[in-house]
Amino acid sequence: MTSTRLEAFSDGVLAIAITVMVLGLAVPDGDGWNDLLHTAGLGLVTYLLSFVFVGIYWNNHHHLFRLCPHVDGTVLWANLHLLFWLSLYPFTTAWLTRSRVGLVPVVVYGLNLLLAALAYVLLQTAIARGPGGDRLRLALGKDRKGRLSLVLFVLGIGLAFVSPWLGLVPFVAAAVWWLIPDRRVERYLQQETASEA
Amino acid sequence: MTSTRLEAFSDGVLAIAITVMVLGLAVPDGDGWNDLLHTAGLGLVTYLLSFVFVGIYWNNHHHLFRLCPHVDGTVLWANLHLLFWLSLYPFTTAWLTRSRVGLVPVVVYGLNLLLAALAYVLLQTAIARGPGGDRLRLALGKDRKGRLSLVLFVLGIGLAFVSPWLGLVPFVAAAVWWLIPDRRVERYLQQETASEA
Amino acid sequence: MTSTRLEAFSDGVLAIAITVMVLGLAVPDGDGWNDLLHTAGLGLVTYLLSFVFVGIYWNNHHHLFRLCPHVDGTVLWANLHLLFWLSLYPFTTAWLTRSRVGLVPVVVYGLNLLLAALAYVLLQTAIARGPGGDRLRLALGKDRKGRLSLVLFVLGIGLAFVSPWLGLVPFVAAAVWWLIPDRRVERYLQQETASEA
Amino acid sequence: MTSTRLEAFSDGVLAIAITVMVLGLAVPDGDGWNDLLHTAGLGLVTYLLSFVFVGIYWNNHHHLFRLCPHVDGTVLWANLHLLFWLSLYPFTTAWLTRSRVGLVPVVVYGLNLLLAALAYVLLQTAIARGPGGDRLRLALGKDRKGRLSLVLFVLGIGLAFVSPWLGLVPFVAAAVWWLIPDRRVERYLQQETASEA
Repeated sequence: MTSTRLEAFSDGVLAIAITVMVLGLAVPDGDGWNDLLHTAGLGLVTYLLSFVFVGIYWNNHHHLFRLCPHVDGTVLWANLHLLFWLSLYPFTTAWLTRSRVGLVPVVVYGLNLLLAALAYVLLQTAIARGPGGDRLRLALGKDRKGRLSLVLFVLGIGLAFVSPWLGLVPFVAAAVWWLIPDRRVERYLQQETASEA
Repeated sequence: MTSTRLEAFSDGVLAIAITVMVLGLAVPDGDGWNDLLHTAGLGLVTYLLSFVFVGIYWNNHHHLFRLCPHVDGTVLWANLHLLFWLSLYPFTTAWLTRSRVGLVPVVVYGLNLLLAALAYVLLQTAIARGPGGDRLRLALGKDRKGRLSLVLFVLGIGLAFVSPWLGLVPFVAAAVWWLIPDRRVERYLQQETASEA
Repeated sequence: MTSTRLEAFSDGVLAIAITVMVLGLAVPDGDGWNDLLHTAGLGLVTYLLSFVFVGIYWNNHHHLFRLCPHVDGTVLWANLHLLFWLSLYPFTTAWLTRSRVGLVPVVVYGLNLLLAALAYVLLQTAIARGPGGDRLRLALGKDRKGRLSLVLFVLGIGLAFVSPWLGLVPFVAAAVWWLIPDRRVERYLQQETASEA
Repeated sequence: MTSTRLEAFSDGVLAIAITVMVLGLAVPDGDGWNDLLHTAGLGLVTYLLSFVFVGIYWNNHHHLFRLCPHVDGTVLWANLHLLFWLSLYPFTTAWLTRSRVGLVPVVVYGLNLLLAALAYVLLQTAIARGPGGDRLRLALGKDRKGRLSLVLFVLGIGLAFVSPWLGLVPFVAAAVWWLIPDRRVERYLQQETASEA
């Protein structure tokens, strides 16, 4: 079974998650700069952060199934599991914004990031065990980047108890770090092509 | 006529149904754990239940059209009929949550599950009568699993009159049961390949 | 230029229009049958009507581009024009419901149906003029069905001034009429295949 | 890496952005023409304007990747950057409407148009530098149309300080100008075909 339809469905959920988050932005009642800043300023920042995370997942998901286009029942459910956590981003982002970065909302946002990241690790594992999984294992190696992200999310949750705003720092750091595209898959494919020649 | 576009459209409706359900989650006004639990706790549970059902339909739909990629006008409308009932999930789920599991909302939710399941049976029948339907009939056999699900949904609707929460038990049972991927189609395809060799 | 991406984009807009209409359904505050009937009863009926119209457009759109998979700039914009009117369905449907079938909302709903139907006629014309348009002209013939629908929509708008509910009758008639799949394209393709043999 | 999935994801975001904007249309409470005009009249006009801009981006995006179907990591992020600004259209359009064309909302709307246009220029640049970018450079030439649009958006922002409604004039002019399909890519492809023959 090829991954074409799995990718189409995932693209749909990710695209809608992004756009639904925009609905969480409160439209200002007044029409001055202050109204914009006060009503939507924080919302725009948290929207940007969550947008980048969804973009990262879309990019990595894209590379993942480019390498391993064959899926079985386990991969289908591992993928739905990932989409479940990603589909909650609009909710946890909206609460983060409405609470003006309260302690519990930061922790819940961090848990959402953490559980989505764990679901992605599970998805990678499910694919690596399936047909054609060797290529994924070789391309990702020990996946230090994936594991260190988990550490950053846990760190952010911990730091939130010191100060909620401080807890956001590791989340932003993870987003910026991943913004630099993960070239491991591209590099692997180039090496593979080179060694075949 | 191949099913490519029918699948793309169905994926779209299912992906959006999932994400629209998240909009039904009320964002807490306060910023403590109690606020989260009180405002969104029940909503997260019912969201998870409906998410799993949509995921099940997506998975089975995927297998169905993998087996029978040729569609005619009857199949197009049978598919739209299924999508109609699935598109009501966000509405019936939201009412279930808002009523804090009231009697009538549980019955209506169960009716929604039941009518979607019947629409799926109709879709299977429409496909089985069309070109290439033999393979579907052989792969599904007597479709005991499909028929028993209908019984579970009827049972839940009945039990709701004893206690609304009790009525949810067969719904959850059906969801868990289907979570185990339906391997009949995969098994059939393997046997087919084996007997050809 | 092939129509693959035009179809994907149209599917997206149609799928979302359907699902967004569900958001227009007011979730009842109470939890009895009366609450459901009073708050959402009418909304479910108008949702069903608009759902059927979107389904009809999706079906016909599907057949149209199956016959004529080549598009140019004019077709792209004629298609966007159609999508514009279809994207307003959630709005006009919601007003129809909220006004409990008031005169002006019925007229506006009818105008929306009429303008979408005219946009579809324009799209057909744009395709018929382009490359491969001969096949479309032969398959549709004088397109009596398309023209009679326009008459039905105008009739409904007129009857609304007698009684708003009466105005809905021709709209429902048009929906039921089109529910019977348009076999002209299928028949044409079969004849074409037959005459080649 | 081909652009198939990038296009599918972009189509999803654009399709949803369009439909989400419809949610921003306030459904009138009364049921007369005055209620429609007062509550939704301005909203329909701004919706039409933003719909045309999204349609323009979809059309041009379509031509862009038709010419250059190969993408790398930089193009993926340049595309996500464009989608970020386009996903904000529903928000800035809603504020423009609610403020009844206030000064700051017009400026913010113009900034959104400007930043999306700049993101599109960046995307073109990223593609032109990649494999197969020669064809894009030849087809677009100096891209006067793209650069003049930027000037129109800046002009509108400036004129808004004279009168907010006056600021909308260059935005509408840019939309109308682009409505005429950009035939440069089509023309280039025809010339290429001709010179090969």
